[in-house]
Amino acid sequence: MAPCLRVAFAAGQFGGWRIERISAVRGDSLAHAPRLALLEGEETLSPPGAAWVLRGVTSNTRYTNRAELNALSAVQAGLHRPSATCAALIPIRKTQAWWDLAQDERRAIFEEQSHHIRIGQDYLPAVARRLHHCRELGEAFDFLTWFEYAPDAAAAFEDMVARLRDTPEWRYVEREVDIRLRRD
Amino acid sequence: MAPCLRVAFAAGQFGGWRIERISAVRGDSLAHAPRLALLEGEETLSPPGAAWVLRGVTSNTRYTNRAELNALSAVQAGLHRPSATCAALIPIRKTQAWWDLAQDERRAIFEEQSHHIRIGQDYLPAVARRLHHCRELGEAFDFLTWFEYAPDAAAAFEDMVARLRDTPEWRYVEREVDIRLRRD
Repeated sequence: MAPCLRVAFAAGQFGGWRIERISAVRGDSLAHAPRLALLEGEETLSPPGAAWVLRGVTSNTRYTNRAELNALSAVQAGLHRPSATCAALIPIRKTQAWWDLAQDERRAIFEEQSHHIRIGQDYLPAVARRLHHCRELGEAFDFLTWFEYAPDAAAAFEDMVARLRDTPEWRYVEREVDIRLRRD
Repeated sequence: MAPCLRVAFAAGQFGGWRIERISAVRGDSLAHAPRLALLEGEETLSPPGAAWVLRGVTSNTRYTNRAELNALSAVQAGLHRPSATCAALIPIRKTQAWWDLAQDERRAIFEEQSHHIRIGQDYLPAVARRLHHCRELGEAFDFLTWFEYAPDAAAAFEDMVARLRDTPEWRYVEREVDIRLRRD
């Protein structure tokens, strides 16, 4: 994987993605805006006049073991596929109780109890995904996950999101917003 | 543990710590300066005119399991003990090869092969320690570790640092600077 890539999601009048809806799953929502720009690297320093900007950075894996990483790498797809005209941005903040757990406790809840990696794998390569960390940046959320998929994978995507929200891991989610987008 | 605390180490003419020496252990050193200020939270936004500033943030544990965390918590000491007039700031950057490893591979090198946690524990409570993460901040280093100890623990501290540098984990360190300080 490449070194940390800075990313900014800027909602406003500009950007390649049209925002279809913004739903508060848990906690406060975000203001509605017509479009979203996905900015990377130097572009993030001066986002266009925005309703809101969420910043994050790609980083190393935190729970995935070697066997899981190899299995994912064999099937996962990258971003920017021409067919993937649907996207979702799901910012999440976890509770302090989650962050106070030890590494083995977080791993057990994440995978052995909640099957987070295994559930995601059921939807590869149809759903492409990039995780951005933002807890250390002092942002309002801990993670920003960006998903891209084709319209014919939309039902599968809903299924995946519903399965994840029904896991023990999600008891530690204290804020979640679900933003759906289309490229036009 | 408290939520992420932003910290800045500012070297220059000001600050509560006198810099005794700065050594390059691997890779480039940092410029010498007479004093170091340890700034926290809002203070980090406007460090005094500085020769250099290293920024980091405290965060959750990444490798420590529950049994290890309990063992550490039972004996470790906090910062700011009046007797702890010696300090060390050791900024480290690891190789891309390290960050490309899966979580189980990094854990195995970190503890099962290198005994990083166990070595540190041998010097508790004499050596107090706070780890700051900075890879996600786009800084030149990945970690800034701050240690405080009394003068009569100085030989033990040297011993600890030497043992850690002799581990398999340290093969993944590509830059390391060792800064020693006294409070006066």
